[in-house]
Amino acid sequence: MAKGGFVTSITRQSEDFPGWYNDVVLKAELAAYSPVRGCMIIRAYGYAIWESMRDELDRHIKATGHSNVYFPLFVPRSLLEKEAEHVEGFDPQVAWVTRAGGKDLDDWLAIRPTSEAIIADSVKDWIQSYRDLPLLMNLWNNVVRWELRTRLFLRTTEFLWQEAHTFHATEEEAATEVETGLECYRKVAEDWLAIPVIRGRKSEGEKFPGAVYTTAIEAMMRDTKALQAGTSHMLGQNFARSAGIEFLDRDNQRKHPYGTSWGFSTRMVGATIMAHGDDAGLVLPPNVAPLHLVVVPIARTEDERAAVESVLEPLERHLAEVTTASGPLRWQVDRREESPGFKFNHWELRGVPFRLEIGPRDVSAGQAVLVRRLDRAKETLSLDRIASELPARLLSCQADLYRRAVEFRDANSHVVDDYETFKSTLNDQGGFLYAHWCGQASCERQVNEETGATIRVIPFDGEPEAGRCLIDGRPSAQRVVFARAY
Amino acid sequence: MAKGGFVTSITRQSEDFPGWYNDVVLKAELAAYSPVRGCMIIRAYGYAIWESMRDELDRHIKATGHSNVYFPLFVPRSLLEKEAEHVEGFDPQVAWVTRAGGKDLDDWLAIRPTSEAIIADSVKDWIQSYRDLPLLMNLWNNVVRWELRTRLFLRTTEFLWQEAHTFHATEEEAATEVETGLECYRKVAEDWLAIPVIRGRKSEGEKFPGAVYTTAIEAMMRDTKALQAGTSHMLGQNFARSAGIEFLDRDNQRKHPYGTSWGFSTRMVGATIMAHGDDAGLVLPPNVAPLHLVVVPIARTEDERAAVESVLEPLERHLAEVTTASGPLRWQVDRREESPGFKFNHWELRGVPFRLEIGPRDVSAGQAVLVRRLDRAKETLSLDRIASELPARLLSCQADLYRRAVEFRDANSHVVDDYETFKSTLNDQGGFLYAHWCGQASCERQVNEETGATIRVIPFDGEPEAGRCLIDGRPSAQRVVFARAY
Repeated sequence: MAKGGFVTSITRQSEDFPGWYNDVVLKAELAAYSPVRGCMIIRAYGYAIWESMRDELDRHIKATGHSNVYFPLFVPRSLLEKEAEHVEGFDPQVAWVTRAGGKDLDDWLAIRPTSEAIIADSVKDWIQSYRDLPLLMNLWNNVVRWELRTRLFLRTTEFLWQEAHTFHATEEEAATEVETGLECYRKVAEDWLAIPVIRGRKSEGEKFPGAVYTTAIEAMMRDTKALQAGTSHMLGQNFARSAGIEFLDRDNQRKHPYGTSWGFSTRMVGATIMAHGDDAGLVLPPNVAPLHLVVVPIARTEDERAAVESVLEPLERHLAEVTTASGPLRWQVDRREESPGFKFNHWELRGVPFRLEIGPRDVSAGQAVLVRRLDRAKETLSLDRIASELPARLLSCQADLYRRAVEFRDANSHVVDDYETFKSTLNDQGGFLYAHWCGQASCERQVNEETGATIRVIPFDGEPEAGRCLIDGRPSAQRVVFARAY
Repeated sequence: MAKGGFVTSITRQSEDFPGWYNDVVLKAELAAYSPVRGCMIIRAYGYAIWESMRDELDRHIKATGHSNVYFPLFVPRSLLEKEAEHVEGFDPQVAWVTRAGGKDLDDWLAIRPTSEAIIADSVKDWIQSYRDLPLLMNLWNNVVRWELRTRLFLRTTEFLWQEAHTFHATEEEAATEVETGLECYRKVAEDWLAIPVIRGRKSEGEKFPGAVYTTAIEAMMRDTKALQAGTSHMLGQNFARSAGIEFLDRDNQRKHPYGTSWGFSTRMVGATIMAHGDDAGLVLPPNVAPLHLVVVPIARTEDERAAVESVLEPLERHLAEVTTASGPLRWQVDRREESPGFKFNHWELRGVPFRLEIGPRDVSAGQAVLVRRLDRAKETLSLDRIASELPARLLSCQADLYRRAVEFRDANSHVVDDYETFKSTLNDQGGFLYAHWCGQASCERQVNEETGATIRVIPFDGEPEAGRCLIDGRPSAQRVVFARAY
């Protein structure tokens, strides 16, 4: 909490986006730096946002037939090394326990960077017959990937996430499951976090180490850069084969099952900040906001205070009975001994969707002023209607935030056909660039090296359209999405 | 799931309690051994039990004003070593990351065995004034303590838990907080898990390393041994002083705040198994049971199957509308192609509180047979009353389980006055022994070395009673609880 009644000022978003982001995270008390290099502390307000999206995603994961389970934090080195591509991808980022219980360990233990390797080894006893399939598991845990450059929520050495791991009898079922996972993420991103996403496939260069292919949802932040908001991987038989998982199928043949895995992490707290925030700080979609409403009583004298308090008591009783799309109304009356201006700043920084101002004149008129964080739109409402009007206001605020994000993304998406236009558009305007690509890794690499942009996804919903690759002019059947990304 | 229609047999509880316990955990698919020494895999059914008690405890923790936060998995060695008693207590059990990102680390990182040290260091910037207090934080996370002998759920190298950490301006407030934490645990143990507990203080020898004093709740398992079911510690100013946390109090003096910490872990899944289970397997209290009810259709011919199915459809519609004390009714119809006997065994092993048997004759009579897992009591109910009767049946089952556990504990609690009787009672009957103790560590140690019993708690609710120490005959004002323990 800011001390001494001073208004907390933050860097302007338009002037320095990364500086703005760090200010919001630290000053809105979402997170703090820790004494451990690259690891963050998630503070109460930030954790409440994470809990909201976690619980919503958990509902989707369970509703699609998955069960939560837990696997160990440690992956023995010998297991991590079984899947060749996988270990190559993760080895440079691994933290190793080499000593424990007062002794040096013979088989070093990796802190899990992800759990494919230990799960594949563990489930081989559970999958004997086609009747044991599909095996649909989900884990909520912490993982560690040693990062050189970290950023609060977006890239931290340790992060919290959900990782689903599933096994199927056929490739078709596994492919459907990859879509199921991605659809869970799309729903949370769009319906809960009000962040529109593009669903698509990653290029070979961007896929998960050890996967056959990777799908992802990509979102645009308010600096027009892209952020990968969730990935769902087809693992094929890769991990099952290297771990020796086999089942007896209906046709009496022994086969390796097909695997998938998909993950969604605390970086989505960062995405929520960057997709909606403005110069005053956070702007939270009501569904995920720890507080929907803050009530700010305005009074300078004892008499005024008494007058305002006289209407607060019945109002609070009514607010306590309000149900919204994301559960019971979450609200607070700010009775601190600070100025109204200080309080407005305080709660705007924290992105509370609505504030209600009640002063002595409002009391006389039997009304109060409802201010919407998103656009500071003011509305005078009679006191006895406020509680009943709030659910609809929260719904339209959620919808308006989503619509604004779609419009922003559309306004910053560009269709480009030649490399010169590509480069100038990227430099002058940024955003998502829809361009043709021949499918060659070398062309992808050249774009990345020369512009910093990567292929975010080959969109599922893209229209087939004949064109020529930006770089080598070879034929392409569909545009892909290029952008600079987090 | 057991394969091939064979009935899973388990060790008899009365013959070999530890063998019974392991059989239940593994064969009811609560957990499995992992490829990592001392670490377990929590399977779907076991994790659902953990989720239920976790969510219930989380509600109590939030209702008492605490916020969830997250601190890093790693504790730098230099921080862990700041509080001398603390590091001495935990050092032998620590797992160390010595290498990460391809380099050897200068300051080794401990995998947290608990988070006091890193929290004390981190919050010193947040606590400046008495207005910043109390600071009431809670963490749900994983911790690692290198154990030589492990047992599924009860003692594992890695376990999941909740650790609350709070800071207060005065010692009195901190003492009240220690009680608040313990009361959260008592409620979950008694009201949710149906496990009666004794609240009390630990002796000096049994307290948490670095604490001023430790309080605990102790429960009796069905082999009459004790299990510590949650601990709440008064840390005094110990960690605040060693980390240099100071605040400006109302009287304008700089002071160290008083700290508390309290924890509750996945070992409570083990406690739930051992407090209620019987020779047929798990017996779950309805509040924590992943399934309240399993419906077993009984039919040998196609006609019979059709007859039974004809009543299942309306029944399922009614069951879907039932609300219980622990949320919507959780139920399942077991339509597998196994014998009824196999299914009965399967669900009894898993401790589902009620099963409903419906055969063709029941269909004709418009009824079904409800069987209670706890005592196999059977009751014939008309089909149209089942859904409406279930909430009351679940409530009384929960109450009966608790009552049975209280009676069992009372029947196995003994008041003893001399050491010979103490030893013979402990050896012949086990259980809780209420005896006098002078307060000296040497007497406590002697009892432990000679009998294996420890002082579980100095009970809060104990009657003052003058007596003489079991060992050295010195005066004692209150009986304490001795027992052999997990």
